[in-house]
Amino acid sequence: MNKTITIAHGNGGAENHELISKIFYRHFHNEILEKSEDAALIEDGRLAFTTDSFTVSPLFFPGGDIGKLAVCGTCNDLAMMGAKPRYLTCSVIIEEGFATSELEKIVRSMQKELEINGAKIVSGDTKVVPRGSVDKLFINTTGIGEIAKPGISAHNLQEGMAIIVSRDVGAHGATIFAAREGIALESTLETDCTSLYPEVKALIDADVEIAAMRDATRGGVAAVLNEWASASEVCIEIEEEKIPVQEQVRGICELLGFEAVSLANEGTFVLAVAEEEASNALDIMKRHHENAEIIGTVTMEHPQKVLLNSSWGTKRFLDLPSGELLPRIC
Amino acid sequence: MNKTITIAHGNGGAENHELISKIFYRHFHNEILEKSEDAALIEDGRLAFTTDSFTVSPLFFPGGDIGKLAVCGTCNDLAMMGAKPRYLTCSVIIEEGFATSELEKIVRSMQKELEINGAKIVSGDTKVVPRGSVDKLFINTTGIGEIAKPGISAHNLQEGMAIIVSRDVGAHGATIFAAREGIALESTLETDCTSLYPEVKALIDADVEIAAMRDATRGGVAAVLNEWASASEVCIEIEEEKIPVQEQVRGICELLGFEAVSLANEGTFVLAVAEEEASNALDIMKRHHENAEIIGTVTMEHPQKVLLNSSWGTKRFLDLPSGELLPRIC
Repeated sequence: MNKTITIAHGNGGAENHELISKIFYRHFHNEILEKSEDAALIEDGRLAFTTDSFTVSPLFFPGGDIGKLAVCGTCNDLAMMGAKPRYLTCSVIIEEGFATSELEKIVRSMQKELEINGAKIVSGDTKVVPRGSVDKLFINTTGIGEIAKPGISAHNLQEGMAIIVSRDVGAHGATIFAAREGIALESTLETDCTSLYPEVKALIDADVEIAAMRDATRGGVAAVLNEWASASEVCIEIEEEKIPVQEQVRGICELLGFEAVSLANEGTFVLAVAEEEASNALDIMKRHHENAEIIGTVTMEHPQKVLLNSSWGTKRFLDLPSGELLPRIC
Repeated sequence: MNKTITIAHGNGGAENHELISKIFYRHFHNEILEKSEDAALIEDGRLAFTTDSFTVSPLFFPGGDIGKLAVCGTCNDLAMMGAKPRYLTCSVIIEEGFATSELEKIVRSMQKELEINGAKIVSGDTKVVPRGSVDKLFINTTGIGEIAKPGISAHNLQEGMAIIVSRDVGAHGATIFAAREGIALESTLETDCTSLYPEVKALIDADVEIAAMRDATRGGVAAVLNEWASASEVCIEIEEEKIPVQEQVRGICELLGFEAVSLANEGTFVLAVAEEEASNALDIMKRHHENAEIIGTVTMEHPQKVLLNSSWGTKRFLDLPSGELLPRIC
């Protein structure tokens, strides 16, 4: 490993995985941690438990703010494990001089989003640090959810399964980049940040046999697909033109030199289901977002790899994102 | 409330309470949160759940580091509710350029302390932010404990009960201050930072009827006693000369103009038990730290107040700490 930590170590991709496995997993080594995906399963698999710290900059952006993000992020990690979000803790680190009115706005956003999830903040912590020790405000939320649908896992993918995305990809990363750089978009582009539990509940209530489910946060859809391909030792083949991407997001991607599938989302998830379940799942998902789409299938073509098929008939591997992706997008 | 957040809002005393009640409790309002003390009780009171973010500066100090502190802090909050620490999450925010070797040292300290508590890190999060967005490294730990001894609460104090401190007070605050200011102490002063679960377990195993128990972190013993007096609507009378204080801590207090009872501790707790339980409890506590001492009793002299009796026969109120106490001590 590098002698110092770099921005790339927080990218949700290759370097991030290296840091986690070589430092944290190595020392904290235990069975629950090693099996944990979006959340750890505790209490005989009855509860899911997950944590996330939020450092997004700017704090307020089109379609959301750090408060909404902090509740969505943690509740979505629980929902992705098939769990109903129940109890959250909220720990804030505030820079001296921060406006009380902005803090209150953030807390109000949190409460609004908690209500959508039917979850509660039950414990908290507040630290104030001198000017310059933190950039404005960071929030940690840690959540406990009740498993409603057990067995969802990155290890479940099998040949023939369909891969569905819940909406167009990359809106959060593109929105934060534009807001931070002061790019005035003549557009309505806003973050996809949203609570996914209601949509997950609809899938569970309709008895969809969910094999794997993951929100495509840091590292985007590319990171999710690569982790699944690797965990299940399968190939995931994606039809590139099926991936829904908004026009404005495509524009920002060209500017940045990134692919939309590697940009972060905060309310977009990927689902793997058996082929015969796919159209039912898609119908339900389209009710929540009309851009939901079946984008590929699981094959044994190149195990542990993600293959992108273009409409020109060319093929290329989509790798786990690496390098300095946008920092502070969540 | 002030229009901006000040260092005083994070002091563990009066202004901190104002911020918590006027912003966080007001919007997050729910029964579990309002009843929560060092930790919230969830799952029909079977589990305790608590969070803490650590921003201490410097990261390494005599007797500990931020990693040890992050595990002790959260596990102690669980132990103080009579809970056995079980599962923790660990979320770190790292400044770009931080030395990997220092990160590893911190993670090792965490693991060592987890083993003392018999607890595990089961889920985590790693964020890297650009230089200047955070001062080196912050850690959040959030923990779940299993209630071994239910009913411990700040509301349980009754006339005649004895108040015991587990050791001399103020060592952590004094150590951090000295380390930060580069005061070379010709002494062995070090933080009291330690995991309290083993001592709590000894009290529970000996069937001590613990009424209230609280680790005296930010705001020190003064904050704990004031919160108890207020919650139980009693007066707590303390014999000032009984409060154990190390000579070096006294020296630093004179320098700072603070009282040792208002300085932060990270492995020192206050216990309230019935008079007839006091000597048994003290015997057990002295086995863990010879400086444990009965420092006062509960009376009805001035309800909701803490009274300090000096050896000269004078009396004064010990108030909830307020103003700009030392920031970044935890």
